[in-house]
Amino acid sequence: MEKAGIEKILKAVSEGTLGVPQALESLKHLPFEELGCATLDHHRALRQGFPEVIFGQGKSMAQLQTIIGALLQKGGNVLATRISAARGNKLLALFPKAVYYKDARALTVEQHPVTPRGRGKILVVCAGTSDIPVAAEAVLTARLMGNEVDELYDVGVAGLHRLLSRRGVLTQASVIIVVAGMEGALPSVVGGLVDQPVIAVPTSVGYGAAFGGVAALLGMLNSCAAGVTVVNIDNGFGAAYAASLINRDKG
Amino acid sequence: MEKAGIEKILKAVSEGTLGVPQALESLKHLPFEELGCATLDHHRALRQGFPEVIFGQGKSMAQLQTIIGALLQKGGNVLATRISAARGNKLLALFPKAVYYKDARALTVEQHPVTPRGRGKILVVCAGTSDIPVAAEAVLTARLMGNEVDELYDVGVAGLHRLLSRRGVLTQASVIIVVAGMEGALPSVVGGLVDQPVIAVPTSVGYGAAFGGVAALLGMLNSCAAGVTVVNIDNGFGAAYAASLINRDKG
Amino acid sequence: MEKAGIEKILKAVSEGTLGVPQALESLKHLPFEELGCATLDHHRALRQGFPEVIFGQGKSMAQLQTIIGALLQKGGNVLATRISAARGNKLLALFPKAVYYKDARALTVEQHPVTPRGRGKILVVCAGTSDIPVAAEAVLTARLMGNEVDELYDVGVAGLHRLLSRRGVLTQASVIIVVAGMEGALPSVVGGLVDQPVIAVPTSVGYGAAFGGVAALLGMLNSCAAGVTVVNIDNGFGAAYAASLINRDKG
Amino acid sequence: MEKAGIEKILKAVSEGTLGVPQALESLKHLPFEELGCATLDHHRALRQGFPEVIFGQGKSMAQLQTIIGALLQKGGNVLATRISAARGNKLLALFPKAVYYKDARALTVEQHPVTPRGRGKILVVCAGTSDIPVAAEAVLTARLMGNEVDELYDVGVAGLHRLLSRRGVLTQASVIIVVAGMEGALPSVVGGLVDQPVIAVPTSVGYGAAFGGVAALLGMLNSCAAGVTVVNIDNGFGAAYAASLINRDKG
Amino acid sequence: MEKAGIEKILKAVSEGTLGVPQALESLKHLPFEELGCATLDHHRALRQGFPEVIFGQGKSMAQLQTIIGALLQKGGNVLATRISAARGNKLLALFPKAVYYKDARALTVEQHPVTPRGRGKILVVCAGTSDIPVAAEAVLTARLMGNEVDELYDVGVAGLHRLLSRRGVLTQASVIIVVAGMEGALPSVVGGLVDQPVIAVPTSVGYGAAFGGVAALLGMLNSCAAGVTVVNIDNGFGAAYAASLINRDKG
Amino acid sequence: MEKAGIEKILKAVSEGTLGVPQALESLKHLPFEELGCATLDHHRALRQGFPEVIFGQGKSMAQLQTIIGALLQKGGNVLATRISAARGNKLLALFPKAVYYKDARALTVEQHPVTPRGRGKILVVCAGTSDIPVAAEAVLTARLMGNEVDELYDVGVAGLHRLLSRRGVLTQASVIIVVAGMEGALPSVVGGLVDQPVIAVPTSVGYGAAFGGVAALLGMLNSCAAGVTVVNIDNGFGAAYAASLINRDKG
Amino acid sequence: MEKAGIEKILKAVSEGTLGVPQALESLKHLPFEELGCATLDHHRALRQGFPEVIFGQGKSMAQLQTIIGALLQKGGNVLATRISAARGNKLLALFPKAVYYKDARALTVEQHPVTPRGRGKILVVCAGTSDIPVAAEAVLTARLMGNEVDELYDVGVAGLHRLLSRRGVLTQASVIIVVAGMEGALPSVVGGLVDQPVIAVPTSVGYGAAFGGVAALLGMLNSCAAGVTVVNIDNGFGAAYAASLINRDKG
Amino acid sequence: MEKAGIEKILKAVSEGTLGVPQALESLKHLPFEELGCATLDHHRALRQGFPEVIFGQGKSMAQLQTIIGALLQKGGNVLATRISAARGNKLLALFPKAVYYKDARALTVEQHPVTPRGRGKILVVCAGTSDIPVAAEAVLTARLMGNEVDELYDVGVAGLHRLLSRRGVLTQASVIIVVAGMEGALPSVVGGLVDQPVIAVPTSVGYGAAFGGVAALLGMLNSCAAGVTVVNIDNGFGAAYAASLINRDKG
Repeated sequence: MEKAGIEKILKAVSEGTLGVPQALESLKHLPFEELGCATLDHHRALRQGFPEVIFGQGKSMAQLQTIIGALLQKGGNVLATRISAARGNKLLALFPKAVYYKDARALTVEQHPVTPRGRGKILVVCAGTSDIPVAAEAVLTARLMGNEVDELYDVGVAGLHRLLSRRGVLTQASVIIVVAGMEGALPSVVGGLVDQPVIAVPTSVGYGAAFGGVAALLGMLNSCAAGVTVVNIDNGFGAAYAASLINRDKG
Repeated sequence: MEKAGIEKILKAVSEGTLGVPQALESLKHLPFEELGCATLDHHRALRQGFPEVIFGQGKSMAQLQTIIGALLQKGGNVLATRISAARGNKLLALFPKAVYYKDARALTVEQHPVTPRGRGKILVVCAGTSDIPVAAEAVLTARLMGNEVDELYDVGVAGLHRLLSRRGVLTQASVIIVVAGMEGALPSVVGGLVDQPVIAVPTSVGYGAAFGGVAALLGMLNSCAAGVTVVNIDNGFGAAYAASLINRDKG
Repeated sequence: MEKAGIEKILKAVSEGTLGVPQALESLKHLPFEELGCATLDHHRALRQGFPEVIFGQGKSMAQLQTIIGALLQKGGNVLATRISAARGNKLLALFPKAVYYKDARALTVEQHPVTPRGRGKILVVCAGTSDIPVAAEAVLTARLMGNEVDELYDVGVAGLHRLLSRRGVLTQASVIIVVAGMEGALPSVVGGLVDQPVIAVPTSVGYGAAFGGVAALLGMLNSCAAGVTVVNIDNGFGAAYAASLINRDKG
Repeated sequence: MEKAGIEKILKAVSEGTLGVPQALESLKHLPFEELGCATLDHHRALRQGFPEVIFGQGKSMAQLQTIIGALLQKGGNVLATRISAARGNKLLALFPKAVYYKDARALTVEQHPVTPRGRGKILVVCAGTSDIPVAAEAVLTARLMGNEVDELYDVGVAGLHRLLSRRGVLTQASVIIVVAGMEGALPSVVGGLVDQPVIAVPTSVGYGAAFGGVAALLGMLNSCAAGVTVVNIDNGFGAAYAASLINRDKG
Repeated sequence: MEKAGIEKILKAVSEGTLGVPQALESLKHLPFEELGCATLDHHRALRQGFPEVIFGQGKSMAQLQTIIGALLQKGGNVLATRISAARGNKLLALFPKAVYYKDARALTVEQHPVTPRGRGKILVVCAGTSDIPVAAEAVLTARLMGNEVDELYDVGVAGLHRLLSRRGVLTQASVIIVVAGMEGALPSVVGGLVDQPVIAVPTSVGYGAAFGGVAALLGMLNSCAAGVTVVNIDNGFGAAYAASLINRDKG
Repeated sequence: MEKAGIEKILKAVSEGTLGVPQALESLKHLPFEELGCATLDHHRALRQGFPEVIFGQGKSMAQLQTIIGALLQKGGNVLATRISAARGNKLLALFPKAVYYKDARALTVEQHPVTPRGRGKILVVCAGTSDIPVAAEAVLTARLMGNEVDELYDVGVAGLHRLLSRRGVLTQASVIIVVAGMEGALPSVVGGLVDQPVIAVPTSVGYGAAFGGVAALLGMLNSCAAGVTVVNIDNGFGAAYAASLINRDKG
Repeated sequence: MEKAGIEKILKAVSEGTLGVPQALESLKHLPFEELGCATLDHHRALRQGFPEVIFGQGKSMAQLQTIIGALLQKGGNVLATRISAARGNKLLALFPKAVYYKDARALTVEQHPVTPRGRGKILVVCAGTSDIPVAAEAVLTARLMGNEVDELYDVGVAGLHRLLSRRGVLTQASVIIVVAGMEGALPSVVGGLVDQPVIAVPTSVGYGAAFGGVAALLGMLNSCAAGVTVVNIDNGFGAAYAASLINRDKG
Repeated sequence: MEKAGIEKILKAVSEGTLGVPQALESLKHLPFEELGCATLDHHRALRQGFPEVIFGQGKSMAQLQTIIGALLQKGGNVLATRISAARGNKLLALFPKAVYYKDARALTVEQHPVTPRGRGKILVVCAGTSDIPVAAEAVLTARLMGNEVDELYDVGVAGLHRLLSRRGVLTQASVIIVVAGMEGALPSVVGGLVDQPVIAVPTSVGYGAAFGGVAALLGMLNSCAAGVTVVNIDNGFGAAYAASLINRDKG
């Protein structure tokens, strides 16, 4: 559209029916965003070959159906997070190609296979069994974004030997996502053991003074291990997204 | 500059040395911001004939001197807020035309006279004597932005009759700024009495459970009088800025 | 009534049956509020031709029915906010002229047509699809209060081009309401682009460290764009009310 | 019982079968609380002729039945607060003399009539209709504790004239309880108008930055009207209890 | 003044130069506050024979001097709270009749003797030695407002016997003010022992998770002893003011 | 396993097929955790003969069944906390030897009898009837961990005599757990009366400014009685666990 | 004294000059606290042979001098905590036998030697060098209370090997105090490695979202290692006091 | 050392003077950390060729001198952050090779030149001039850790065009650090424009409801732009450290 607008101006200039000063003036007042769209129109995810993502929480079934349908028409893969089992089942009936992941509380539709193309593996470390839904969301997201993913579960700080006995897995990763609730100490311990970037995900697991994940969040922000960065509480998706950006092979 | 670049392309088109498709391609890849700047380059304050404003807090004397000097060269008026008396005196020595307002903890340099051009008056209402610095900052800002300003001070909620006895002043304003600390109840009372937009400014006045203005801020956000909007704690400048935008005569 | 009382005194004075000092004494002890009521009796909304408003949250169906019925008898329009769909349907059965707005979670009864009478348009800008209920409440309120209203939805900060491509709509508004959850950054961006008063509405959209809208609220209170004022979390009604006061043509 | 024990010792001393040093030793090791109980055994409420009070929230139906039954056997009046309508109905079936107060969410069993015996009236002032349950709890408690009670409802700060027009009622009270949610400004206004002790009750009414009554609580703690004291959020019972202590005629 | 205005209207009516309808109209538009002032003009403190009070914190020496001077001219007693020793000494030099109370951080000028006129004594109970400044402010305020005052210091909860051994003093008071920092448990204990109204004053004494008095404030608001009301952190003045209102002999 | 690895190296050295430097190198690179496991493999609880513990909250029925089944196969006793009555009944059907404790909301399977082996008794003191679930969890945990346990219930601070009359029980304990909600003052009072270690457990009992146990937690952390340590809100299990460690007879 | 009172009554009974009923009545009204004092008069610290302790923060030099002087007259040892170096030097001049500990910011006067009499050693573990003042306060307190004390400093979570290489020291302690700021993860790690009671002390070390020790406090309260109890921020004294109670040999 | 110990055992095995079972037993009980240290002894920074880092805040001049001296002896580069200008000057006198960076409030001693060895450039974007100290700390840290660093300063959200006009710089970076105070919206905007990992650093710049950086922190944690991770308030060092780990060329 705006391309057509500029083309018209240029043609008029070319044909001599529009003077250069007038054309300049027209272009100057042409809303810059019209050009801008040309470069901006592909948003971040699309530029990466990443799937389209829907944050399911707070959306109605009707909205989910509409959005998933529309995204599928674009031809890419789709990832819907924060989908309860009940809703997942309804969506499976609507979209035959969809797969529902109970642990990750997520639904995917893979219209084309995902092949790993990162520089290395992403490792997802998880403190307790109650943190698994958040970890599983991270694992699924990372895989769908074209990464090889390793898992290291149930390696909490109070049972340090379980973590130490798996140090090999730690050092083989390109990026490490550490998911923990309660006091959120695991990223500090992992960060002290490895050289890789560590992304910490506080979870809302805990009770009382855990304050729905605030204790873990504060613990991670104050980590004594340099190089730990943090995402929002329960944001397994965001951690995996950031890890994917880090793991991309740009060369 | 970028104007020159587009001009060159247009001339080449006009002269037939550049085809329309090639020109289109060039323009398409022209960074949109180059055009964007043409419309964006004048930021908000400048578009309004408002003075240049410097937030003095946290700036060194050297920084203040440099910035004020640079702004004065543009030829407009200058307002520097959050300037202590000690710093104000030093700046007075450096800028002979400057005026320091002790109450408002602010310094101005008026290179050209300010004439009121709003639709009506801005009224600044102030609960207690300790709130006066914030109110005075609002009054000075509003005046410098081209508004007639009225003041109604020391009309706290616990002495309601002082406020009620001045209702005439309330109804004559175009916009009302209400400055209050402690429990921040005054905007609710004023809002219940008038038809004008009310901008509430919580102050950090108080102690203990006032939490540096949080009690007043929450009180104002929860005002039972519809039509009250709120700015940050102690932000007399911001309230006056918003009031000036409301009071402008756009016709 | 109290008018009758004063009239009686005045008549007695006029007829000479009551001396001036005695009349003075009577009037002096006449509860001031009796006179006061004459000017105060019409509360803010009524003075503006605004509809009667009911905040539905926390009221029983019986209370809603009673209040709506009573307000309708006054002859004006009625707006009930925070009405769930289930309750909306029950009220539609009770009040045949009522209309229920699902998006806005609100019900109206328009007994007389609303004609726009403001100085300009009110624009409601909305960051994400989950923020729409709050935005829709603002739109409906603004329209019912006699304003022309424009909408600009789904223009979040992370997809800046969508916002920039609609700059024309921004500059045509008289007042702009910006509704956003999560980090609440949109009002800063909008405030940096326009000259109009901006009213920011934080929403409770988000999770984890969004703390039910606190993150967005703090973001908006600390906006680096001067001239942004803020209302309570999810308070679309309050923002529209304030915008209506600003948009009134008092001339 | 322990009285019997001491009596036995004293008798033995009296009869010469126990020496004074031995008796002294016995008494010295007699747990002091045994004597203490004599003065302490009647707890606060009982000393005042106040009813027995049960805080219903968090108790099971079985617990409620047992406790009410036991208290009734003592012969006094009983007040159970925080009783939902559903539970109230069940209790009415169990205790034929019981009365359930829907507004106050409370149940009483009056085994003997309550006659006012305070120095004056207790006035309960209430800001909004949503605050009424808390106000009604205060009214019922105060009445059951032997006070004459007046009510002044729906006199919020944003409609100040409604409050001002009832000033007479304010000045006739001995103690004033002010119940308000949202910004909690009403106690400041009332406190500025009267000479009586004012007890402020914040309610959890509001949304968003009301934070379940925190905004009102902070507002009341920071009241600019000296002489206002505060109780916990929604604690209508506690306010009435304190008011009753103040209103007692000790002469 | 406004009396003169009404008189003029009445005279005109009386003399037949003003018709009743016109007079009615005039009176109707007469700002109600003019009449209102007649009853409202004496604020709370003045009505009680209480001293004039200045909150010294945040006021400049110049402001203090001006205000104290002005208040003294009214002829009453003056109490200035939150006055540091350094400022106190300067004020002593300015006002020869002034007395500075180091413990209470307060200055008084008693122009006429204060005679106790309450129904009973006010007792000020204090948990720790660090709480004494707040307690002393309460004692001084209560005395200056015409009450007999008793003190019971250093009776913290961890040394319960010190409190229990003074139960006699507790029961002789008309109102009890309990001042405590840290966990703020003392009002609960006192409230459980006595029949009198208890006003709790949290202090900012403590460290770490005391959060400047928040722990004590929350403890007091949640007191399991019914009948305890609370004032702001460190607000010894406010507690004494409320206690004075309770202790007044209105009979 | 790793023992086998080292053995192989040593044998090769012994047999002369591996040189000392090569063996040294192998051992140096042998992951230290392999050795570490030998000493670390028995986690804390197991070392003590304590039961296996499952935190039931947030686990599915399927997870509970699997975990309990697996732990029973190890032959020890099992304690599952935070089990609702409904779930408890289902588990009773699955595990015939299980016992469900309604008060403690916990389920146990005792495969071998527990015999007390501590240095003394653990006393659990409880402020109010609503705190009993947390106290009961502590009692059950302590008993299952091999301690004699005493209970002292319903001895709140506002009825001090009930506590004082039971001082004998207090002094006979080896460790005292104090469970309290609301203002959480009881540990201070108990701590002032005894010489034993006191572990304070705040409960989420209360409303309004109790903030789900935060008021009690802060009260306990700021206890004026030295020697009081604190666990998380509602963490009866954790308090009993710590008390068991203290009460162990290590001699 | 009160012993004399009871003796007098008993004598009168013995001599027949006082009837049993009258004696009973007298004893009943004898303030129970008189007897109570007999058992209560020696507060907790004294009963243990512990030193007298003064919390120096917020006390004036004059107060410190008076209190220390008075305590020394009782003949025991004295420990004053939170004493700055400047004040420490002044007190050294006043009390020749005093010793000032710069690291611990504490002053002691040991009038008689302290001999260890606990069941085992107390170990103080410290995460970072900035936490040392709090750790040193704990070490000094524990030693002065008659314990052997070990130290393990600078063993933060991010350098886990330093901690693991000292496991022997950990297992030899009777009680372990763990001092840590920032994210406060160290107690979880230590608690997972040992069988001893662990007392966690959060410190105010850190910045930003450490919130003066709140992050560490929350981390410790939510520790995934059972058996960890917590004291107030920076409360090295309290931790050592509790550890001393645990370490006492009561046999 | 421990290498020698193992060597001795191996030699004995080799020479036949120690049996394999005995050797195995010795090695089994060999503290695992001795081996562990061999791999763990070089902590994270050292493994990367990163400089030794000292967090200067809260350390005494003597401590700083000692630590810097010791680190220099190891032969590497040294970076000391949070060093005031006054302290910086003193250290310059002590360490002639040191350089003090006023903007970054940091001191370095480069004993060997730093050569960039990352995959790309690190870009540091900074919202306002008051955020520069934090940004400068990040820039200096990143450079010293062997990265090429670009700067983009004063590109706040309210002046969006300044940012948009520099999009080229954004897209050329390998990792982007975004430093912002107040509402912290800049990372969302940057994250929406680029494909690179974005590390957000909230600063304590702002006032009132900025709460020392909490508003910016929450804004960043709730960023609507996926892929943004966050570090602690004012933690420029931590952001640069994490960026360095991401930018390393591991190939």
